[in-house]
Amino acid sequence: MAEQRGKVYIVGAGPGDIGYLTLKAYKLLSSAEVLVYDALVDAELLQCVPSDCLKLNVGKRGGQPSTPQAEINELLVKYCQHRKQVIRLKSGDPFIFGRCSSEIEALKAAGCEFEVIPGISSAIAAPLLAGIPLTDPVMSRCFAVFTAHDPDALDWEALSRLETLVILMGGQHLAEILHRLVRQGRSRLTPIAIIRWAGTPQQTIWTGTLENILEQTSGVSLSPAVIVIGEVVGLRGYLQPEKISLENSSVADTWHT
Amino acid sequence: MAEQRGKVYIVGAGPGDIGYLTLKAYKLLSSAEVLVYDALVDAELLQCVPSDCLKLNVGKRGGQPSTPQAEINELLVKYCQHRKQVIRLKSGDPFIFGRCSSEIEALKAAGCEFEVIPGISSAIAAPLLAGIPLTDPVMSRCFAVFTAHDPDALDWEALSRLETLVILMGGQHLAEILHRLVRQGRSRLTPIAIIRWAGTPQQTIWTGTLENILEQTSGVSLSPAVIVIGEVVGLRGYLQPEKISLENSSVADTWHT
Repeated sequence: MAEQRGKVYIVGAGPGDIGYLTLKAYKLLSSAEVLVYDALVDAELLQCVPSDCLKLNVGKRGGQPSTPQAEINELLVKYCQHRKQVIRLKSGDPFIFGRCSSEIEALKAAGCEFEVIPGISSAIAAPLLAGIPLTDPVMSRCFAVFTAHDPDALDWEALSRLETLVILMGGQHLAEILHRLVRQGRSRLTPIAIIRWAGTPQQTIWTGTLENILEQTSGVSLSPAVIVIGEVVGLRGYLQPEKISLENSSVADTWHT
Repeated sequence: MAEQRGKVYIVGAGPGDIGYLTLKAYKLLSSAEVLVYDALVDAELLQCVPSDCLKLNVGKRGGQPSTPQAEINELLVKYCQHRKQVIRLKSGDPFIFGRCSSEIEALKAAGCEFEVIPGISSAIAAPLLAGIPLTDPVMSRCFAVFTAHDPDALDWEALSRLETLVILMGGQHLAEILHRLVRQGRSRLTPIAIIRWAGTPQQTIWTGTLENILEQTSGVSLSPAVIVIGEVVGLRGYLQPEKISLENSSVADTWHT
């Protein structure tokens, strides 16, 4: 057998359920020799790789901290240089808050071959799976996507004027987000939805207004969650099948091989 | 055989290449009885359905106008009531400027069962496939997605202040978009990229600044195209493999069954 070159594929796994994996990602997983994955990746996805594939969990696990980024970079470079087909599996899409730059820089510096494969971002899938269209010809001609890790770094005046907002990893900053938007003049009656564990059997949804959502989610862990703010949240009952109950609905239909 | 109920699946096909189809969409196509599809859907996707599946192209074709929306709605309802498994295939993601509301309303009014399946939106895939990350810890903590069909309906003052903008179907309105942003104070030196036919072998990319992109694309058809505006465009050479040439690059790696 001719010696193969090593290559690292930075692959988007989508929002969770294996059915939302792309054919390209599935094919790559099927022949992976090394799999480096994060905490949010669905366990079923780990079954797609060959039985002799080395699986490395670099995410948080049972209260342990996640692997330092420099160490992840080294792992990718090392196995690529050992001529392995390496899959770096990221939840969602690698280029939407996927923090890939450091890994790509390390791969380029070491002369490693790599390719980035898109996935379905939870920013887009979570609202859809909750029955909320992010765009609408009348209510939402524009949507913005951001995280709220560092609220001071965002232009809340501009954001508050956009029709629809999608916030990733914002559960812990919910009070701050609401406060900033209302202070900039966004109506307290603006609809809001919080979708936790989108695209998984545990999917849970809370809906309300900027005024009452804190009360509704008091004491609840909102991680991982996608927050949607805007009138489109009100289309939820309107655009989804009758059979799905409106509160705390779950994804009933999962994909099986 | 017990008589099945009809059902309509509104399915996102992703940005073009079959490799970006989800496993769930692929499985549904494999057992489709009726396929209703748009012009932008890749021809290879049409090979996923069984040979006896009825294929209805309702998009623009050879200069002919597309099928009126009311007629598409009637088709979906009719075949669902005839107990067929109907796939309504949309390019990208159905809920990102997919104009599904009218079809869903018609299905609900007729009591038809339906389900919406997410796909990879070209708003997210096109930048990635061009080597442009929409988010970056320093340069882009926020991105907004919109179309420019009706420029007067958008808040350009707010949009001009956001770090990264993604514009779908904006090729014909490029001059207007540039004019509005610069008028609101966006620097003429802001980087811009235009990605045409993203995710297909014909993918073509132009990059420049708000000041010179019009000149560069003069006389060229910019449809279908995704426009990205912001400093992240400058990361393009930095975050993609060396082997891809920077101008007019094409997707070399396609998915084959």
